[in-house]
Amino acid sequence: MATRRGKNTLFMDTPPRLLSWAAVGAKQEGQGPCGKGFDLISEDSYFGESSWEKAESKMQKEAVSRAIQKAGLTPADIDTLFAGDLLNQCISSTYGLRDFAIPFLGLYGACSTMAESLLCAALFAEAGFVEKACAVTSSHFCSAERQFRFPLEYGSQRPPSAQWTATASGSVVVGRGNGGAAPVPENAPVVKAVTIGTIKDMGITDANNMGAAMAPAAAETIREFFADTGMEAGAFDLIVTGDLGMVGSKLLIDLLQKDNLFMEGRHRDCGLLLYDREKQQVDAGGSGCGCSAAVLCSRLLPALSRGELNNILFIATGALMSTTALQQGESIPGIAHLIWIGRV
Amino acid sequence: MATRRGKNTLFMDTPPRLLSWAAVGAKQEGQGPCGKGFDLISEDSYFGESSWEKAESKMQKEAVSRAIQKAGLTPADIDTLFAGDLLNQCISSTYGLRDFAIPFLGLYGACSTMAESLLCAALFAEAGFVEKACAVTSSHFCSAERQFRFPLEYGSQRPPSAQWTATASGSVVVGRGNGGAAPVPENAPVVKAVTIGTIKDMGITDANNMGAAMAPAAAETIREFFADTGMEAGAFDLIVTGDLGMVGSKLLIDLLQKDNLFMEGRHRDCGLLLYDREKQQVDAGGSGCGCSAAVLCSRLLPALSRGELNNILFIATGALMSTTALQQGESIPGIAHLIWIGRV
Repeated sequence: MATRRGKNTLFMDTPPRLLSWAAVGAKQEGQGPCGKGFDLISEDSYFGESSWEKAESKMQKEAVSRAIQKAGLTPADIDTLFAGDLLNQCISSTYGLRDFAIPFLGLYGACSTMAESLLCAALFAEAGFVEKACAVTSSHFCSAERQFRFPLEYGSQRPPSAQWTATASGSVVVGRGNGGAAPVPENAPVVKAVTIGTIKDMGITDANNMGAAMAPAAAETIREFFADTGMEAGAFDLIVTGDLGMVGSKLLIDLLQKDNLFMEGRHRDCGLLLYDREKQQVDAGGSGCGCSAAVLCSRLLPALSRGELNNILFIATGALMSTTALQQGESIPGIAHLIWIGRV
Repeated sequence: MATRRGKNTLFMDTPPRLLSWAAVGAKQEGQGPCGKGFDLISEDSYFGESSWEKAESKMQKEAVSRAIQKAGLTPADIDTLFAGDLLNQCISSTYGLRDFAIPFLGLYGACSTMAESLLCAALFAEAGFVEKACAVTSSHFCSAERQFRFPLEYGSQRPPSAQWTATASGSVVVGRGNGGAAPVPENAPVVKAVTIGTIKDMGITDANNMGAAMAPAAAETIREFFADTGMEAGAFDLIVTGDLGMVGSKLLIDLLQKDNLFMEGRHRDCGLLLYDREKQQVDAGGSGCGCSAAVLCSRLLPALSRGELNNILFIATGALMSTTALQQGESIPGIAHLIWIGRV
């Protein structure tokens, strides 16, 4: 049984193993620094489907299929599927995953969904509720733009603080730490602890500055993890936030420094890892549920399994707003969930 | 640690206790057969707020506040909050609950959310991840109509198979079965087992016939529970589905009879319990996340704690569609999660 420390941090007694993973993306993601780590890059942003929404569903389906296959499993081996996305009523997940016939728990954490789904899968494995579970999320630039901002045909201008919603999906298969019924790869990364985030609203109202809206939530969760564990940044190879982008990342460092928490050059942000901002026009960096999911599955987990990284904190951040809420004058609440991923 | 039986059913070793609950609704819900069991009925459908979306957030806030108070607790005593709703990006939950500063896991299960959130809270308590957790959901007739169908001002006609989205919220506080650090009321209902549902899509495309879209999912989950446990309907005082309404309820009985599963008059549906269809114009019955949540918290849990009921199955059902998906020609996938609630 996991040990609770402090308010929000749960330590795993038998750290669940990340058995396999897959990343799926489109052309622009393939051209970025993580491109080589993707399992599937589609030149066609429709992924062979008739709409961008269906394309996003297809991405989740491909990511889950490939992750399950890479673990040498079939969908029948997965006890619970944890999934969510940015589209209204999370249709990328529900339509993309309906054919698997796997017990399904839908989540909504906006761009924090990769951390939320993975921490839920890990906790279910730790508790023995599942032998194996799967976590997945996605985002699509075109479906997100027309839902949250403007139809692409409108050709609206973007301020420099705007972030670029990644067209990507990532999926991870999690197994019980004791191996359960089946052998597990020795080099599988493990989940050592998780910190469940609280909603933080600092009054930001600019939907083109999501990084600033999410940075305070990331700062709070990171602060709580270090307070709960007594650890310091130096204990980790990398501290990777979800998708704060350029603006939010600077704000995060500032916020933590005010509390005498120094990241010592270890901080990275998935929004800045997925694309090359010098060569690719992505404004303040990548965003969307698929951004942190794809960076985790194309770059961080492979590096952990190869032993190039030994200990990381993965903190996906979400902005919990809707266009309706903003039109009604609301500010943008943020949330950040943290996962400590290490090696056995 | 919970014991897994069959594909999807988890039995609790130390059945988590339902410490307290609260139901909030509007005028029409107050006038229905469950009206007397509500903790708060607002004559004003805006609940004193400036929009229906904000009203729905207010309902969740009130439901959670009151449930926590009734347990003699404060928000700081709640380790994790599980919440979701029907509005785009689940804003009823995120805006309604942001001020509590409780670690937050957002869910999306459409109208199955009360069962999903409660089963997650119960499983977290069973695993010792929380001492106490809170589950909540809501819906609002006016915010749902304008998001999913037509603006109310349009005055569109409704076919008889249409259901009436409840303006209601329900919240339950769950505590560890061994009582954890604090004493628990002896008569608290307990969660004995849960069955996590799978997505089921039978090709229904009529958004005015949600009951028919959800009935196959309910049938499948009930079938799996009985197969996993070897129990029969006669072991339960009531088998209560989420919100199938008149059309879906008939279909459910038919579907189960084909598998030689007979409900023996024990089946009830929250969509038919919340309103009096003879006196109230609600077409095929109530629906919305708040419907099953309010019936659970205003009628079923009070009856369990008074000993009028001893064993029930609560199966909330959800239709996992969006207007965008339907406009693109998609059918409506359904899901149903089951909770066996009994007494110590």
